[in-house]
Amino acid sequence: MSHTSRQVRLASRPEGFPSAENFSIEEHPVRSPEDGEVLLRTLYLSLDPYMRGRMSEAKSYAAHLEIGDVMVGGTVSEVIKSRSADLEPGEIVVGHAGWQTYSVEAAADLRVIDPDDAPVTTALGVLGMPGFTAYSGLLSIGKPQEGETLAVAAATGPVGATVGQIAKLKGLRTIGIAGGPQKVEHLRELGFDAALDHRAGDLGDQIADAAPEGIDVYFENVGGPVWEAVMPHLNLFARVPVCGLAANYNSTGLPEGPDRSQELLQTVLNQSLTIRGFIQTEYQQTLFDDFLRDMGAWVREGRIAYREDITEGLDSAPETFIGMLSGKNFGKTLIKVAEDAR
Amino acid sequence: MSHTSRQVRLASRPEGFPSAENFSIEEHPVRSPEDGEVLLRTLYLSLDPYMRGRMSEAKSYAAHLEIGDVMVGGTVSEVIKSRSADLEPGEIVVGHAGWQTYSVEAAADLRVIDPDDAPVTTALGVLGMPGFTAYSGLLSIGKPQEGETLAVAAATGPVGATVGQIAKLKGLRTIGIAGGPQKVEHLRELGFDAALDHRAGDLGDQIADAAPEGIDVYFENVGGPVWEAVMPHLNLFARVPVCGLAANYNSTGLPEGPDRSQELLQTVLNQSLTIRGFIQTEYQQTLFDDFLRDMGAWVREGRIAYREDITEGLDSAPETFIGMLSGKNFGKTLIKVAEDAR
Repeated sequence: MSHTSRQVRLASRPEGFPSAENFSIEEHPVRSPEDGEVLLRTLYLSLDPYMRGRMSEAKSYAAHLEIGDVMVGGTVSEVIKSRSADLEPGEIVVGHAGWQTYSVEAAADLRVIDPDDAPVTTALGVLGMPGFTAYSGLLSIGKPQEGETLAVAAATGPVGATVGQIAKLKGLRTIGIAGGPQKVEHLRELGFDAALDHRAGDLGDQIADAAPEGIDVYFENVGGPVWEAVMPHLNLFARVPVCGLAANYNSTGLPEGPDRSQELLQTVLNQSLTIRGFIQTEYQQTLFDDFLRDMGAWVREGRIAYREDITEGLDSAPETFIGMLSGKNFGKTLIKVAEDAR
Repeated sequence: MSHTSRQVRLASRPEGFPSAENFSIEEHPVRSPEDGEVLLRTLYLSLDPYMRGRMSEAKSYAAHLEIGDVMVGGTVSEVIKSRSADLEPGEIVVGHAGWQTYSVEAAADLRVIDPDDAPVTTALGVLGMPGFTAYSGLLSIGKPQEGETLAVAAATGPVGATVGQIAKLKGLRTIGIAGGPQKVEHLRELGFDAALDHRAGDLGDQIADAAPEGIDVYFENVGGPVWEAVMPHLNLFARVPVCGLAANYNSTGLPEGPDRSQELLQTVLNQSLTIRGFIQTEYQQTLFDDFLRDMGAWVREGRIAYREDITEGLDSAPETFIGMLSGKNFGKTLIKVAEDAR
């Protein structure tokens, strides 16, 4: 039996915010797996802000897509056919099959997950890339110390929510920043000590009230105006892990002046700050096993909560992705591509 | 016998570049030392860029001076009179007596130096604060690895020259940046692998030629246009210790746009950079003994060279300081305040 894969491909490069025209939906026959490969049926596709960077030619931390390429993305899939001794049909794997219904992947690029351990979707969220981004960046770079204060933005998203909850477990005072009253309400449910709405009044004033003793760790995943508001409140020796700058991903040029880059460096100097960019892959070899152990336990014990925002059907991926870039998602954004056969 | 101290005080706050009118020269009687204190006669006064920050009210990493205060500064002095069991008249000490000929200081704030070990002036340069800034920041934050490439600006100055030479000792390829052909010539004498003149043509192009494999450590002590030229050449996982931003110390407002601060953060993210501000006092407890041992040996063995730019007479301090801020000094800037009596 030969399979047809329905695929979302990059049709053109967006200028500023992406639109539906930047994507094309096509169907192509899937080739047969060769030795060491498997045929996969996608169950869930993860949508993440970094994908916007791959759509552009601008320099980023990863190679950009070419026009016509299948959109990249993390996936949970079922093995349909295997030519690897390591995988059997019916097993559930997490990998990078992208925005498509079927694909052929090397078994070596896949990790088996046990649906009895946790819902399979968590392998794309709290127990996957976003959760590991939170865990590795916070612990390795943020170096959270009991009694300190942490701030994080996009704090209902899968990275921010996890950062805040780990910090809370480590004994920090936590400040979450999100957009709109519903999300702020959810921040309180997640246990943030302060929940700020960046759409409600001056964020700098809100931060001053919420962090009277300043901020020791600012986990940076958005940049832009939130960074500007946080910067004056960073304490001596504060740490700033930088895993994303979602506020800028759709900008089409440099913002208007004045030029604040030297002011930024002056703040680094005045406050002996550490600003450190990272991609979670840096810590894959050293921390991923610790992460699965710690976070697996925290999720099982209910000490770390997570929220998912699941939309049905591959064809809805472009619209869902565009919505996510403007903050319409609420929790980890996922596309349910197919039913688990089991 | 009572002594009169001739003093340079802050008369008014400079707007932009300081001028002679910002300083006043006065004479005041010196009080007698009390228990635990000593009377000092200043032999040498160190002039350093950080002093410009103390003259302003703008936020900096240290408290600013009040109008009428004696200008702060590192000094080498002779003990004239002692009411401390730890110090005897005739001993030579390094401390922070400021811009004046005599002063009373707590013995606990002073460190005895042996003029037979090294010229006493080195306690203000290569074996003092600037040398320790270079040593502690380069080793703790820069983490230089054999075979890597380092760049440093103000590279004939006491910090930059020391950074470059330590990096060379550690097996790095070193790029020094300075202003004018004479200084560039001196960089070659100091052993820099590449010596760039930021006044001669496009610095970015010069860096591209000098660092075909990119820069792994950029020791930041100037900021401004040099930072802009270096940034695009920073390698993945490059480290940027920030100890000063001399290019900005006389600016009266934010530079014109566009705003490059988000571009800076994007580079941090793309390249997994570490940018870390520091003041050498952070490492005083942990590294100063190692520094005195290592650097003392390197200077004695001729493996680290240093250059001094000594002007005679306290009254010349303001003009010399202003000249230093525009790059007129050539090596460690010192004022010889009095002859060593010995």
